[in-house]
This record gives sequence, C-alpha cells and structure tokens, in this order.
Amino acid sequence: MLSKSKIKLIQSLNLKKNRDESGVFLVEGNKMVEEAIRSGFEIEFLACTSGFAAQHPEIGRRANDWVETDSETISKASLLKNPQEALAIVVQQKDLTPEINPENELCLALDFIQDPGNLGTILRIADWFGISQVVCSENTVDVFNPKVVQASMGSIFRIKTGITELSGFIKNAATKEIPVYGTFLEGKNIYHESLTSNGIIVLGNEGNGISEPISRLISHKLLIPTFSTNENKPESLNVAVAAAICCSEFRRK
Amino acid sequence: MLSKSKIKLIQSLNLKKNRDESGVFLVEGNKMVEEAIRSGFEIEFLACTSGFAAQHPEIGRRANDWVETDSETISKASLLKNPQEALAIVVQQKDLTPEINPENELCLALDFIQDPGNLGTILRIADWFGISQVVCSENTVDVFNPKVVQASMGSIFRIKTGITELSGFIKNAATKEIPVYGTFLEGKNIYHESLTSNGIIVLGNEGNGISEPISRLISHKLLIPTFSTNENKPESLNVAVAAAICCSEFRRK
Repeated sequence: MLSKSKIKLIQSLNLKKNRDESGVFLVEGNKMVEEAIRSGFEIEFLACTSGFAAQHPEIGRRANDWVETDSETISKASLLKNPQEALAIVVQQKDLTPEINPENELCLALDFIQDPGNLGTILRIADWFGISQVVCSENTVDVFNPKVVQASMGSIFRIKTGITELSGFIKNAATKEIPVYGTFLEGKNIYHESLTSNGIIVLGNEGNGISEPISRLISHKLLIPTFSTNENKPESLNVAVAAAICCSEFRRK
Repeated sequence: MLSKSKIKLIQSLNLKKNRDESGVFLVEGNKMVEEAIRSGFEIEFLACTSGFAAQHPEIGRRANDWVETDSETISKASLLKNPQEALAIVVQQKDLTPEINPENELCLALDFIQDPGNLGTILRIADWFGISQVVCSENTVDVFNPKVVQASMGSIFRIKTGITELSGFIKNAATKEIPVYGTFLEGKNIYHESLTSNGIIVLGNEGNGISEPISRLISHKLLIPTFSTNENKPESLNVAVAAAICCSEFRRK
C-alpha cells in the first residue's frame, strides 16, 4: 500500500521548490514509467498495480524502493486527470551544462520558454531529430515540471539538459566561432540557407520571441517564410512548431 | 454593464451542445477580438473596456450589439485564467465542407484529433503555410471549442473548416485521382518524395495515428524519418509537429 506520507510527497513534487529541495521528479503513466525503467535514471520509488509489476520483473532491480497497490490508490496520489497503473519518483540528472558542447553537435538553447507543454514537445522534437543537447535559460520553465515530463513522452530520459546564464553560454561559443542560429521575421529564408551540423539553435519566448540581449549574439538570422496569400497574415508560429521546422531543415540538409 | 444573463450565456459557450444550439462561439482576449473585428465573421455581441473601445472605433459598425464595461466584469464572465479587456460572441461560419476542394489546392483532413490545443495549433500552421482548407472527421474536437479558438491565434477566422464523414470525402477525391497523403512508420521518406500542390494531407489521432479505414484510402504513404541514434528511439512526433513538417515540405518543394 501507499502510505499517506508517500502520497503527500508525490503530490508535493508538483512544485519546483519541492523538486529542487529533494532533487527528484515525478513520472506518471504506464508508458512513461516504462521509459524510466529502460533509462539510466535512478528510480527512488515506484508504485504500480500487480498487473504492471507482473509485466516488468526488472522493477525490483531498477527501483530503490517499490510497492504494489491498486489503481484507486494511484489515482489518489496522481496529478493526472486520467491516472494509470504506475508512477515513479526519479532522481534528477545533475545540471549537464558544462557537458553540453555545441562545437561538434547541434544544441538547442531555450530563451525563456514559459509553457510546460511547449518545453516537453521541444524535448520530443529534439529527440526525434537526434539533437541530444538542450540548454535552458534560468527563466525557462523547469524541465522536471510534471507537465514537461509528460509532454516529452519519454524524451526527458534521452536528452541532456542543463540550465545556464544563456548569454554567457552563447558568448563562449561565439569565441570558438560556433554558429548561433535563431528565427526572426527579418532573417534569411531557412529553405535556401546552408546549415551546419554543429552549433546552437536559439528558440525564444512564446509571446516575445528571442530577447534583445540574446538577439545581438545570433550570428545567423533565419526566417521560416509564410506562404499565406491572405491580406491579413498570421503573425507567427508556435515556438514548438518553429523548433520542429528548424530541426527538420537542419537534418534534411 | 454586462447583465447576469449575458454572463451566463457567455459561460455556456464552453459546452459544444450550447454552441451547436446557438450557432455562435466565444472569442476572448484583445488580440483575438481584434482578429474577429478584422475578419468577415458576424459579431453578435462584444464586451470591452473603454480603453479597448477607444482604440477600435469600428466596433459599433462591426458588432450587432456591444457594451463598455470594466475589466473585473469581463473577468467574471471569462473562461480564461488571465482575462483581458475584450470578449466577443461570434457567429459560426456554416459548415463549408461542400466548398472544400482538394482538386486545385492542398487541404488538411483531420482524422479524430482529440486535443483542442493541437487542433488550434494545426489551424495556425495551415494558415502560415497558405493552406486555407481544413476538413474534420465527425469525431474530431469542435473547431469552435474556446481552447481551439484561442490556440489558433486568429487563424480560425482565415481558414475554411468543415465537418464531414471523412472516408466518403476521401473516396470522392480518389475517384478524381486527387492524391491523398498521410504519414506512417512504413511510409516513404518525405524529404525524397515529390509532393504536389494539390491533394489531401491526412493527420491522425494523438494516440493511434490514422484510423484503419482511412489508412486504406491513402495513396501516398510518407515517413518523417527519425535521426535519433539512441538505442531506445522515440516512438512518434506530436500530431501538430508532424503537420508542421508536412506543410513545410509541401510548400518548400
């Protein structure tokens, strides 16, 4: 069974403060917990139904501590609208910023992404396009936010993420002549530019785009052109959509 | 001021049943209401602050009925977490399915899209890429759902949408030899295929992809290849992300 104090701990992980203090995060749902088990992340605690346990004999080896319980109890602890048969408390990977290196590989840099759904979707896109490094500005939403984790569909376990003071990170790259890309309305048509297999692709805030100080550090301004012939044209694309089109173009070429 | 019965009417538009009965939908926020004013849609009612009214002298001409009120009253009526200075009740455009014609233009066909955020984002993508026709299966979320409307960022006013029995619609197109595209794990690499400037691009359900009966009607199966070199590869892309990459590829070529 799941103790009251454990349920309280699980629910407390909805808040960043509590995640920061404990250094763990919450993973929910059968598929996501399976991804956690398959990953190299340390699983501090796991709760699941007997059915889920029977399908995953490796749980005992992978989790430091675990219990079998019924789905009603999991529902009680869950932050999801439609809880499933398993949840897990997983240890956060330490900040990997020093390891993230855009010299030989592509790296995404997130400049104040606010929406957890967007961040999770961006991790999933990076994973699909074989971009294993994502660095976040200090004001970007926490990658271990439960909504980010769920929207990443398991990609959180495969992507190296780090938090850093973004302008310093980019300036440092610029001194090594690493290309720094970003999309702007006054940029050059992404379909016609030659794109490298290393460097930094900066993605900006949902409402305001890339911030002024970071804009000045972009060496290659790109444009995803609109094909609208409407008099009243759309103003922008969603940031995860722009990320997808950028990643697709970088990889296609 | 905003009467109690008007507030009740506004809030009732959260439910499809009420939208269907009244034939109207709710538009919220300054930018979205501005888009409604600029559009050709009939505005049945508009409520805004005096500040918003001063900036939009055309309101009297555009709205059948309107009131000036304070932002607190708008908050009371609003379905948004962060209400702004204006909201409007707008008349739904009639079902445009008979008008939607994939013979000369591209058209998106949505096969059981469930998430309103995804549908709104897909409308925004279609708009950006100059695809003005989107046809929805009967089990796709309602395009006039307030969350769809908000996520579309105004594109709802520029895209022709219709609801139809999808397999009939596609079969009819097939008899005219109109190409029908969809993405599948066993499809051909989208980056290498030649793509037409007309036809139907089918997008499938978030969890299950394109349904079995619709799959059989797809004449051109495409694949967005993964570039992941991870042993444990991501399974799929979010449907709006897949839509973005498809639209980008069709327009680029």
